[in-house]
Amino acid sequence: MNLSKRAIEVQESPIRKLYPYAVKARDKGVKIYSLNIGQPDIETPEIMLDVFRNLQEKIVAYGPSQGLDIYREALVHYFQHLNIFINENDIIGTTGGSEALVFAMTVTCNQGEEILVFEPFYTNYNGFATMADVRLRPITTYAETGFALPTREVIEKHITRKTRAILICNPGNPTGTVYTRAEMEMLAEVCKKHHLYLISDEVYREFVYEGEKVTSVLELKGCEELAILCDSVSKRYSACGARVGCIVSRNKELMAATLKFAQARLCAPTIDQMAIAACIGLPDSYIADVLAEYDKRRNLVYDALTKVEGLVCVKPRGAFYIIAKLPIENAEDFIIWLLENYRVNNETIIMAPAEGFYATPGLGRNELRIAYILNTEDLTKAMHIFTTGLEEYKKVKL
Amino acid sequence: MNLSKRAIEVQESPIRKLYPYAVKARDKGVKIYSLNIGQPDIETPEIMLDVFRNLQEKIVAYGPSQGLDIYREALVHYFQHLNIFINENDIIGTTGGSEALVFAMTVTCNQGEEILVFEPFYTNYNGFATMADVRLRPITTYAETGFALPTREVIEKHITRKTRAILICNPGNPTGTVYTRAEMEMLAEVCKKHHLYLISDEVYREFVYEGEKVTSVLELKGCEELAILCDSVSKRYSACGARVGCIVSRNKELMAATLKFAQARLCAPTIDQMAIAACIGLPDSYIADVLAEYDKRRNLVYDALTKVEGLVCVKPRGAFYIIAKLPIENAEDFIIWLLENYRVNNETIIMAPAEGFYATPGLGRNELRIAYILNTEDLTKAMHIFTTGLEEYKKVKL
Repeated sequence: MNLSKRAIEVQESPIRKLYPYAVKARDKGVKIYSLNIGQPDIETPEIMLDVFRNLQEKIVAYGPSQGLDIYREALVHYFQHLNIFINENDIIGTTGGSEALVFAMTVTCNQGEEILVFEPFYTNYNGFATMADVRLRPITTYAETGFALPTREVIEKHITRKTRAILICNPGNPTGTVYTRAEMEMLAEVCKKHHLYLISDEVYREFVYEGEKVTSVLELKGCEELAILCDSVSKRYSACGARVGCIVSRNKELMAATLKFAQARLCAPTIDQMAIAACIGLPDSYIADVLAEYDKRRNLVYDALTKVEGLVCVKPRGAFYIIAKLPIENAEDFIIWLLENYRVNNETIIMAPAEGFYATPGLGRNELRIAYILNTEDLTKAMHIFTTGLEEYKKVKL
Repeated sequence: MNLSKRAIEVQESPIRKLYPYAVKARDKGVKIYSLNIGQPDIETPEIMLDVFRNLQEKIVAYGPSQGLDIYREALVHYFQHLNIFINENDIIGTTGGSEALVFAMTVTCNQGEEILVFEPFYTNYNGFATMADVRLRPITTYAETGFALPTREVIEKHITRKTRAILICNPGNPTGTVYTRAEMEMLAEVCKKHHLYLISDEVYREFVYEGEKVTSVLELKGCEELAILCDSVSKRYSACGARVGCIVSRNKELMAATLKFAQARLCAPTIDQMAIAACIGLPDSYIADVLAEYDKRRNLVYDALTKVEGLVCVKPRGAFYIIAKLPIENAEDFIIWLLENYRVNNETIIMAPAEGFYATPGLGRNELRIAYILNTEDLTKAMHIFTTGLEEYKKVKL
């Protein structure tokens, strides 16, 4: 029995593909620090967990396809607090940010059409693009220049007759970049001129460390028809397993079309939506405290990496990832080697090889992504394993 | 800004499209009995709700992309109880049965390839097919013959070079059919001969009223490579808002490919999976009691319908829907008229027009689907509104 071509070609997640090696090591009693996946160790807010604990519902029933009213109303307030003014009808609740991205690709592009992305990009965009039968056309950015956005001229050179949208992740996973307002306005100008949608994945909106304010795609003037926000509560409230996100746009036709796809899959998880709606009651200090904790982690990881000879990395300004370019040939081999061979006090680490975050073949092979999502004590041990492991690996392999 | 062709063409759910009329009536203080959607009024089992209420987790974390171990182990036991022997690796947990169906279409078909379906079929297959860029090629079945499966010859005549799978819903939504073992074996033979996958949506497995046992696609001999089960816990445990389903196959390559798509969207809702896993502890009497209740409802609705002059319907043997062919031209107009104009004691009903359950243009226009998912008291009132409303409508419109 043949499988479809796309089933054979779809990318295996570089974030999860080395997981079996971790399982093998764990089965031998080795402790693994997981720096491969953006699963924070921050506790989910009590106010959210209480919704589960105090559940009064007798029936876990379908919700509306566009999302529960209380969830969408909570989002309206959340965005209002950010000086972004939308109403409930501009929002469709989705099953995580993942579904929002698949919807955005599906409603904007015909099969085989193209979306521009800046590589390295969130690797799962590849899977979503395969689902939606959309080609991701990469524009390369570089660790050496802080993964800065290319000039307008470079971007425009990549636009073809098939280009339908530009997709950004801001703050950037895996790069840690935060685009300036000027950069966002440049992208908006390009999109307006070439009739492209601007799809903005802003799930790390709260995670900015240098006092910047993220410019949301929804704030751009004159972009009401082309701006599409994809969002998720997973990171903001450390609730990754609650599959709740949203797609937001003021383009009414686009939202009406998206709703039809949303109707086919009936609804996003209802209890999760109720739980997330409660988080609107959190004070600003909640995010401030979380951010302070991540900032410590960021500094710890960055300081450890800068001490490694020949390693290139840029201090991330946002999100909670860092791309490290290693002074070795193949980062994936190094990670597998760590999982199979290298222990410090019977502990080791798993990270994500970065090659899968690039669409251009061959790029990123000597890079890896570290998610700094563990407490500083664990992270200190993990980075010690990383740096001593790399020394050892170079001795063994070079 | 142009939308994609598929965004314009994707079907609006006939189950949910008339909902705005219901909202309008409700806003005027009219009580609506909802017979349009398969949302049972049966309470979700306490054993499941207790998992939410007793939540110990401090972090609502990502689960494995293939589903939580406890959930997949519970499913292994569940199927074992049905004399179906699979192991955890044959299962991927999905976000409802919906995602399982999108996965099944995506891994079996290239873009533009075809899946045979027997119409009328579960209308949301249209949306999934648009998502997956697959053509549903309908083979018509008829109310007059109880929506019986066509002969092998008729089925084989519909197979083209582009056909990759046959998709069935057993027990059938919206038809209430339950395929015999002989019918299932005939389908298996056709699939084997023509190298087609057999995708079986069995979410209503427990809902059979005539003592039959549903023959699962997983029980068919020699079909290990081509059999794909799509399942959901929504109906079985009256937990539609818990978005938890699964795709099951013994075809290892197919499951490996499916896992890659599953990795892209990270995981299904984790707390919902935990809650569902607890339901494995329910005694057989749980389903027996639920079934007895539905059987009462089935008889009530069927008896009411058979009293309507000129109405054609067949007594459903499974699921909880009935297709009624009305002695009027347009069932959708009738439903809208009920919602806008017809009240009994300031109450009215909403049902789903059946045209959208057919892929052949023009078919089903005078049919509607009734979901018998309300208690007998409400259902009695609803069917009274239906029958008297139809009389009145005929007077006004014919």
